[in-house]
Amino acid sequence: MSFYQYFNGEISPIDTAVFKTNDLGILRGYGLFDFFRTYNGVPFRWDDYWRRFENSARFLKLTIPISKGDAERILAELHARSGEQEVAFRFVLTGGYAPDGVHVVEPNFLIRTEALPQDNPEGRLKGIKVLPYEYVRDLPQVKSTNYVHMVLMADQLKEQQAADLLFHKNGEVSELTRSNLFVIKDNVLVTPDSNVLEGITRKLTIELAQPFFDVQVRTLTFDELMSADEVFTTSTTKLIMPIVQIGEHTVGEGVAGKQTLFLQNLIQDKVKEWGKA
Amino acid sequence: MSFYQYFNGEISPIDTAVFKTNDLGILRGYGLFDFFRTYNGVPFRWDDYWRRFENSARFLKLTIPISKGDAERILAELHARSGEQEVAFRFVLTGGYAPDGVHVVEPNFLIRTEALPQDNPEGRLKGIKVLPYEYVRDLPQVKSTNYVHMVLMADQLKEQQAADLLFHKNGEVSELTRSNLFVIKDNVLVTPDSNVLEGITRKLTIELAQPFFDVQVRTLTFDELMSADEVFTTSTTKLIMPIVQIGEHTVGEGVAGKQTLFLQNLIQDKVKEWGKA
Repeated sequence: MSFYQYFNGEISPIDTAVFKTNDLGILRGYGLFDFFRTYNGVPFRWDDYWRRFENSARFLKLTIPISKGDAERILAELHARSGEQEVAFRFVLTGGYAPDGVHVVEPNFLIRTEALPQDNPEGRLKGIKVLPYEYVRDLPQVKSTNYVHMVLMADQLKEQQAADLLFHKNGEVSELTRSNLFVIKDNVLVTPDSNVLEGITRKLTIELAQPFFDVQVRTLTFDELMSADEVFTTSTTKLIMPIVQIGEHTVGEGVAGKQTLFLQNLIQDKVKEWGKA
Repeated sequence: MSFYQYFNGEISPIDTAVFKTNDLGILRGYGLFDFFRTYNGVPFRWDDYWRRFENSARFLKLTIPISKGDAERILAELHARSGEQEVAFRFVLTGGYAPDGVHVVEPNFLIRTEALPQDNPEGRLKGIKVLPYEYVRDLPQVKSTNYVHMVLMADQLKEQQAADLLFHKNGEVSELTRSNLFVIKDNVLVTPDSNVLEGITRKLTIELAQPFFDVQVRTLTFDELMSADEVFTTSTTKLIMPIVQIGEHTVGEGVAGKQTLFLQNLIQDKVKEWGKA
């Protein structure tokens, strides 16, 4: 395994120090990112991820310095150098070097090759515990680099044997730190539509669920969450992960829901076939 | 002018790339900082700044890797190398390199030497315009690196010939992007006590004003702001800066207030004598 990174036109080994210290990402938290992986050696849903990356950049008024085609060539090069069949890629776009510490002059653009995040097969079968947390992300439609609460609470999550935080505020629920939320009640599948980052796996889940469920993308209250039959979360790295415990509250019977596992199978079949056509 | 920086034990020229790309400050916005300057070659109110830096670090559960005494020796070295009489220093403490992108292992600690920020003598005499902005900083008691709204709005501020954003929410005002707020009505001086970073210049202003004003540190409503006789902002770089325009609203007569200028003189005398004792 020998991972490389691309930074402003240069490829270097992954542990090379490339950032100067007046970067607006470092000094002002002004940055955005995206993260995706390969299946069967092919970046999964690359078009969707690139489009979301463009959206985040547009919102933060940063210009991506390369084209989509350039990005594809760089990904191929980084992938080849890794020597791995499957890899993950992280795009990071920051406000760049700012002489005055405030104004964007030219963004810094980084692509990191990373190992696939650790899988959690047990969680996928048995479900995970999450902690309710009163918070709404700032600029939720942007995949910004602001994950202060996630890092701040990491130790407490461990202590409480919880896998993640579930954000809620004013009686409404939104998302988890890095993943979207779905609940099932009878045959209705609901996912929140406000204060969320629109996940690619969320989108795919909605597509796959459409023929089988009454899918509703709308405001979801905390009370609805607490009375749901099944709850699960979706993300690039988790795909579909059942949630069986929310703080002190046990979801349904406390085991991964049947309908959740049904959808989980559908999405796992989908990724298994990716790139094989 | 040849500025240097200190990073994890090494001193290097200020434009040396020292950050690897898996730093939690870059990837997760997990970082804090502080910023102070010299007067007469001596770091102003260093004890206060160091204490605040310690407070921010404690709140984000990061350990500062050096002692206060070590920091003093490094400041002296960086100052000497700069060849300048007066300099500014920026401390930055991030979550450090994280193999898993989430958990803090060992913070990265940076000290940058910087030129004094550009002065605004005209603003100090005539006052500045600010824009009201509905926002409350996340974790306001921490001098975190999250300044996304400031950078995002920088162009719009310029267009509207405004110097800064003034944060308010739910009818209460808190602070500006990088400075504290004071209002004067009759002989009462009020500065907000919640959702603010407790500025060192704010503290000094309260000390200096005490003998002359009824100083109240408490909740300040937006209505009070709008009916104030005088408004000003305080910061390390601005000292005391009159605010004469808040969006479309003109404060008092639209000129720097007499009592504001009185306090401004007091604080300018104070810094002029700093380090001379």
